[in-house]
Amino acid sequence: MENMISNSDKSQILIDALPYIQKYNNKIVVVKYGGNAMTNDELKDAVMNDIVLLSLVGIKVVLVHGGGPEINAMLKKLNIESKFIGGLRYTDEQTIDVVKMVLAGKVNKELVQLLAQHKGSAVGLCGIDGEMLMAEKKVSEDGQDLGYVGEITKVNTKPILDAIANGNVPVIATVATDSEGNTYNINADTAAARIAAELGAENLILMTDIAGLLRDKDDPSTLIPKVNVSEVPFLKMQGIISGGMIPKIECCVEAVRRGVKGAVIIDGRVPHSILIEILSNEGIGTQFV
Amino acid sequence: MENMISNSDKSQILIDALPYIQKYNNKIVVVKYGGNAMTNDELKDAVMNDIVLLSLVGIKVVLVHGGGPEINAMLKKLNIESKFIGGLRYTDEQTIDVVKMVLAGKVNKELVQLLAQHKGSAVGLCGIDGEMLMAEKKVSEDGQDLGYVGEITKVNTKPILDAIANGNVPVIATVATDSEGNTYNINADTAAARIAAELGAENLILMTDIAGLLRDKDDPSTLIPKVNVSEVPFLKMQGIISGGMIPKIECCVEAVRRGVKGAVIIDGRVPHSILIEILSNEGIGTQFV
Amino acid sequence: MENMISNSDKSQILIDALPYIQKYNNKIVVVKYGGNAMTNDELKDAVMNDIVLLSLVGIKVVLVHGGGPEINAMLKKLNIESKFIGGLRYTDEQTIDVVKMVLAGKVNKELVQLLAQHKGSAVGLCGIDGEMLMAEKKVSEDGQDLGYVGEITKVNTKPILDAIANGNVPVIATVATDSEGNTYNINADTAAARIAAELGAENLILMTDIAGLLRDKDDPSTLIPKVNVSEVPFLKMQGIISGGMIPKIECCVEAVRRGVKGAVIIDGRVPHSILIEILSNEGIGTQFV
Amino acid sequence: MENMISNSDKSQILIDALPYIQKYNNKIVVVKYGGNAMTNDELKDAVMNDIVLLSLVGIKVVLVHGGGPEINAMLKKLNIESKFIGGLRYTDEQTIDVVKMVLAGKVNKELVQLLAQHKGSAVGLCGIDGEMLMAEKKVSEDGQDLGYVGEITKVNTKPILDAIANGNVPVIATVATDSEGNTYNINADTAAARIAAELGAENLILMTDIAGLLRDKDDPSTLIPKVNVSEVPFLKMQGIISGGMIPKIECCVEAVRRGVKGAVIIDGRVPHSILIEILSNEGIGTQFV
Amino acid sequence: MENMISNSDKSQILIDALPYIQKYNNKIVVVKYGGNAMTNDELKDAVMNDIVLLSLVGIKVVLVHGGGPEINAMLKKLNIESKFIGGLRYTDEQTIDVVKMVLAGKVNKELVQLLAQHKGSAVGLCGIDGEMLMAEKKVSEDGQDLGYVGEITKVNTKPILDAIANGNVPVIATVATDSEGNTYNINADTAAARIAAELGAENLILMTDIAGLLRDKDDPSTLIPKVNVSEVPFLKMQGIISGGMIPKIECCVEAVRRGVKGAVIIDGRVPHSILIEILSNEGIGTQFV
Amino acid sequence: MENMISNSDKSQILIDALPYIQKYNNKIVVVKYGGNAMTNDELKDAVMNDIVLLSLVGIKVVLVHGGGPEINAMLKKLNIESKFIGGLRYTDEQTIDVVKMVLAGKVNKELVQLLAQHKGSAVGLCGIDGEMLMAEKKVSEDGQDLGYVGEITKVNTKPILDAIANGNVPVIATVATDSEGNTYNINADTAAARIAAELGAENLILMTDIAGLLRDKDDPSTLIPKVNVSEVPFLKMQGIISGGMIPKIECCVEAVRRGVKGAVIIDGRVPHSILIEILSNEGIGTQFV
Repeated sequence: MENMISNSDKSQILIDALPYIQKYNNKIVVVKYGGNAMTNDELKDAVMNDIVLLSLVGIKVVLVHGGGPEINAMLKKLNIESKFIGGLRYTDEQTIDVVKMVLAGKVNKELVQLLAQHKGSAVGLCGIDGEMLMAEKKVSEDGQDLGYVGEITKVNTKPILDAIANGNVPVIATVATDSEGNTYNINADTAAARIAAELGAENLILMTDIAGLLRDKDDPSTLIPKVNVSEVPFLKMQGIISGGMIPKIECCVEAVRRGVKGAVIIDGRVPHSILIEILSNEGIGTQFV
Repeated sequence: MENMISNSDKSQILIDALPYIQKYNNKIVVVKYGGNAMTNDELKDAVMNDIVLLSLVGIKVVLVHGGGPEINAMLKKLNIESKFIGGLRYTDEQTIDVVKMVLAGKVNKELVQLLAQHKGSAVGLCGIDGEMLMAEKKVSEDGQDLGYVGEITKVNTKPILDAIANGNVPVIATVATDSEGNTYNINADTAAARIAAELGAENLILMTDIAGLLRDKDDPSTLIPKVNVSEVPFLKMQGIISGGMIPKIECCVEAVRRGVKGAVIIDGRVPHSILIEILSNEGIGTQFV
Repeated sequence: MENMISNSDKSQILIDALPYIQKYNNKIVVVKYGGNAMTNDELKDAVMNDIVLLSLVGIKVVLVHGGGPEINAMLKKLNIESKFIGGLRYTDEQTIDVVKMVLAGKVNKELVQLLAQHKGSAVGLCGIDGEMLMAEKKVSEDGQDLGYVGEITKVNTKPILDAIANGNVPVIATVATDSEGNTYNINADTAAARIAAELGAENLILMTDIAGLLRDKDDPSTLIPKVNVSEVPFLKMQGIISGGMIPKIECCVEAVRRGVKGAVIIDGRVPHSILIEILSNEGIGTQFV
Repeated sequence: MENMISNSDKSQILIDALPYIQKYNNKIVVVKYGGNAMTNDELKDAVMNDIVLLSLVGIKVVLVHGGGPEINAMLKKLNIESKFIGGLRYTDEQTIDVVKMVLAGKVNKELVQLLAQHKGSAVGLCGIDGEMLMAEKKVSEDGQDLGYVGEITKVNTKPILDAIANGNVPVIATVATDSEGNTYNINADTAAARIAAELGAENLILMTDIAGLLRDKDDPSTLIPKVNVSEVPFLKMQGIISGGMIPKIECCVEAVRRGVKGAVIIDGRVPHSILIEILSNEGIGTQFV
Repeated sequence: MENMISNSDKSQILIDALPYIQKYNNKIVVVKYGGNAMTNDELKDAVMNDIVLLSLVGIKVVLVHGGGPEINAMLKKLNIESKFIGGLRYTDEQTIDVVKMVLAGKVNKELVQLLAQHKGSAVGLCGIDGEMLMAEKKVSEDGQDLGYVGEITKVNTKPILDAIANGNVPVIATVATDSEGNTYNINADTAAARIAAELGAENLILMTDIAGLLRDKDDPSTLIPKVNVSEVPFLKMQGIISGGMIPKIECCVEAVRRGVKGAVIIDGRVPHSILIEILSNEGIGTQFV
Repeated sequence: MENMISNSDKSQILIDALPYIQKYNNKIVVVKYGGNAMTNDELKDAVMNDIVLLSLVGIKVVLVHGGGPEINAMLKKLNIESKFIGGLRYTDEQTIDVVKMVLAGKVNKELVQLLAQHKGSAVGLCGIDGEMLMAEKKVSEDGQDLGYVGEITKVNTKPILDAIANGNVPVIATVATDSEGNTYNINADTAAARIAAELGAENLILMTDIAGLLRDKDDPSTLIPKVNVSEVPFLKMQGIISGGMIPKIECCVEAVRRGVKGAVIIDGRVPHSILIEILSNEGIGTQFV
């Protein structure tokens, strides 16, 4: 189809992106990368292209990633079984070692490599580098020990800002450290929200495998494109925000409350969803402001 | 039509521009602006958008312009008649005053204003500012005095580079000066070629009202997309390069000989021709390398 | 006479300038250039020398100019007649075009050229460049439309400070712009006062064709050398400030009120009046503080 | 014992380090960390202290590490068996994944964490970050495929120099990449030598589990403290350089040939061997110059 | 003895200095140099080594010195007799000339020379250079004129900070100036305290010929290692602070009151007392906080 | 007389200085200060004013001074007798101490103080500071030991350039040092010439008590205003250059040969002779080029 688009239309599409490029020029956008967009090769390719393009037009992208499926696969291969406490995985020393290796040594470096193949320049960091993410033990709601599951106590933005100043896209694996040298697993959505807040980002983008917040969860045509964070409690009461959406939306609320201009949940299954969100007047998914 | 293009296709078009943005990133492109693209309002609008977009994606555009029709109109209003010598207008003191006023005071400032309206930041300069263009009297081929028609003796790139470093698009009216304080009218194509050479530009773009160099001037399908400057004498002998094309192509040859990577004659009547030339694999017009 | 002055006296004169050079070192002085000093060749020469000398001794001169006589001459040549409303010229589209051309394209560039001939480095700017002077329509006191006569709404000092930082004397033609791309004619005294204020200038110098403020307008020996701006209303009541002096002095008052250390009306008919004012203990004309 | 050393002697020891601090001030020292010094907790502690101290006295330490034992342990846990070709492990896709994870995700980050605990500031990098180490397939001497065993084709020093300029100790895991996105395992000694050469390092320190080069391998008192690289072939012929020493010494020779001032094989089993080597007149181990 | 200390102990001693180097890194330490440490050649040597070492480990040392004995010797040679008023020497014009010459021309330059011999880089300054120390006449307690004995009115830190920024140890002779061009002799302890305060120094070290503040002045084992400045009046009442100690301790109190973190009186007769004080957990002498 | 000079003439005198200010702008001028100009209070005052004025108009003045008369006076007061060898004073340890004290501690600091009183900013340096002047023993022509009379072996310009960059006039006493810590007395003319050469100065000015080089030494009207260094041997043969002029002129020749644009011997007895030389078309004295 694209080949049938005239030069004139192509130019117009570039020109239509102009006001958005101007809006985000020199601003920081934090992208939490995850879900299908991270497993499907074509989608991965599209994400990498999106990030490189945004970098070139002067937008400072910070890529934060998790890696649940790869961690699970490795734990399985190593025959490490997981105990769950209140829905959260108890993370013993063996497990945190696997988490660290897989996130910081495999997923992270593969993303850096992929960006380089798309002619982007990237460095891979985790929360341990330059003590970027300091954490302490998180306790479950009923007070049980969860092992090395952590809660961020401090974000040191220097290594991230250094990477940007050196002309690189920082790719961040969300393991954290403390002053005793313990390592903690940090939820990637939560980490992305805190990082966006500390960096004074213009935007936080959470890539998910859903279309966004739907008024009727079975009807995609009921997508709510924009939500003011003050409406969130009411939407929860109505049951529109429920289940797995709750923690993601709480990250968005938290980011906005701490000064991020907008936080958006986008559908990572749509190719180039980042580009569409940032550089067009359509946006996709649900934006929290 | 454009509205019927899918988001996916739109994204792909942006992504397709990626390698070109990377190629020209941080490079200087000199655009000689003229012809229909300068008189038709819609085309003007498209040119301004193109320049602002290129600036935003990290390409340093230098805009060089003439203004023949406006000069003629003003001379007519003032009842100043022109004498022609060997096809060149004899430029007396009265005339050079009008040229200076119209180019540096009217056309130049209107372009700056137009770029500002398209959210670009521009400053208008002429060859007198910072003694950017130094010239001496040009003599006609048969040795006759042509008045204040000049030939560039030196280009001082500092004011242009200052403007770029200060974040502005330099818009340049091609009147020159000498150390005695005389003003000279300089052919804008020639000036653009010299400026491109002195700046070490990546590209020189001459906007014209023709499709490019045609093997058969009556058949647009015979467009020659790329010419090596060494072929030019042969193409002249064949009569393929002839008439008004000769001086324009000589500017291209001159620029390439002095180190500009490519010089291209594009069809200014096509909207967004600059963007198509720089950011697509199609190019339009004829490129000299 | 000068040739008869001894080397010793000459040295002493240079030494006498020392405290004034120290006082103005690295400070901005805005000079509104106009009147006889702009038409008489010898005076022009002296002004250019003064400006170049001040620049060399570390004083940052900003030259603001009008060009009424040249505008009138051009309007006459073009047979454009002017309608006056309450003493102000109604400025239609034709007229503003002439104003822009003459000021920004002729007078401005000739001053840049003249400074270059005196070994100064200058760039010519108008309020359109870098959107330096933003304006809106001025309405006459009785509410009538005056066409493109403007009132400054905002001064963007960046292009002026850039020019200074790049080692140039900024020469400024006082036409302004708005966000719709309209051009306005701005009174040069008013513009100079606003520019001086926004730049935090040390001094504003208005060159005129009078000796200064005289207690008895027919007796030059009654010159008032210094006036505190708080005395101005009283001097108006007494009729000492009257007629054409009123708007000029209001510019001085405005500049001082907005933070300029001193604003002075000097006699441009005296050669080197700028130099005498800045570098000697005599001063000339009337200073407002 | 140390507690019985007088203040005066302690001061003298600090003062004795002065000429060495002056010699290495602002210079780069590349340390290849490995062997016992990496497994024994007390030795690890001493190494970290040494590096932090050297950093503080103005020496720019670059820490390059391998991690063979940890890789083996993980391969074993995952039941991945290794095939050996001419003494080199055939590295299939599964294996290179484990190598990458363990080196870049576990060993590397633990060193960064350990330096932080000793109040040093460090960032962990691997050859993939910023495309620091570019490699191609290495072929065994008899031409057999070794899988993802690589040979460095290019060292991009920018990420290392950035880390130093940002005030961090760069900690480098020696996995490399190519333009197709393949990952290669690189011998850490070889990588350290190449990195030292490309950085123009003052010194390359290879930590080993031997005392240095011994004339009689069973008699520690026959240690050769200094060898000119031109003597190496002769020492090989004599059998003094033999077995596992050959590749290590070839790294030293290579580094010196490419401009590193000195390359030294030190005994990592001695606590603070780095400090003794750099900051005393004794040195330890064998230095190649 | 030192030669019998093992490499391992030597390394440990360097490592033990680590936390102190970290503490003082990039901080300013003002050392008042005087007494035996300035006359005994071996002690002088040790002091120079200490200062060069501290500079190399990133501590910014400012060296302030007096020179009483050398002044007295020169006065004697010149047969200039001194009159004393309330214990202070009346300083006439002849005497201040000698003070200036000896301090700024002899003692100061010899220290600069000595530091250079120890591979340090130093420049000698006095309070006249860059008007660093501005003073006025001090009057004796009973109101008598003391001649050119001065009291500091203003410290201009620029020449000191310039010297540090240029990579030099500033060596300061404590003669001061005023706006009339008079020279004053300033007590070196007092000057060092004021300089430390104005520089926001981390530490002020006064080198003396006593062990520190002793609870029983005849028993060195009664040294008081640390005194809070609020305790000083009480210690005076008890007679523990008495005699010549009073003015020195008042300098310490003054420095601490004006923001210096710690001021310490050390025993200059102990070799490397500065190093022991700064780089060990023992400290020597009495510290005021 | 000066009061009778009109404003117009005064301005013209300032303007006449313009081309000279432009010529020397940002250039280094080394002034060797000595003779009457250093003992007569009025002349001293004029010199200080000249230097401050030149600094303000962007000329970088380096002031080098001797101090023979003050040294002699002090030696006499101290009853130190001088032995002369081949016209040069044998400088024993006692004498070099006096030289150092008087030059670096008295004369130097008084000049710094005097410049400060004239609102100049200065720092006093000698050849010991930052090891600016390195020297070795000079031997008399017949090979006899002259004690601490030195010959410059190396000029380290860093402390001088630092002083200029910090906005100060460097005032330099010409005592030198060596790597053993010996001090040497250096002839101030010679030192000024070497310093000028090493700094790449535009001009070297030697202030003397003669009118310049006279063709007939008894007839001031026979002053030779300009000499090419190639003519010097001939002028010596003619006896026009003779006696005390020889070493001074050799300094000028040396400076010019090493790249200084012009070296001039001026009459320090004429007030403002520096200013007249630098800022007028007359010059005074004899210039060597």
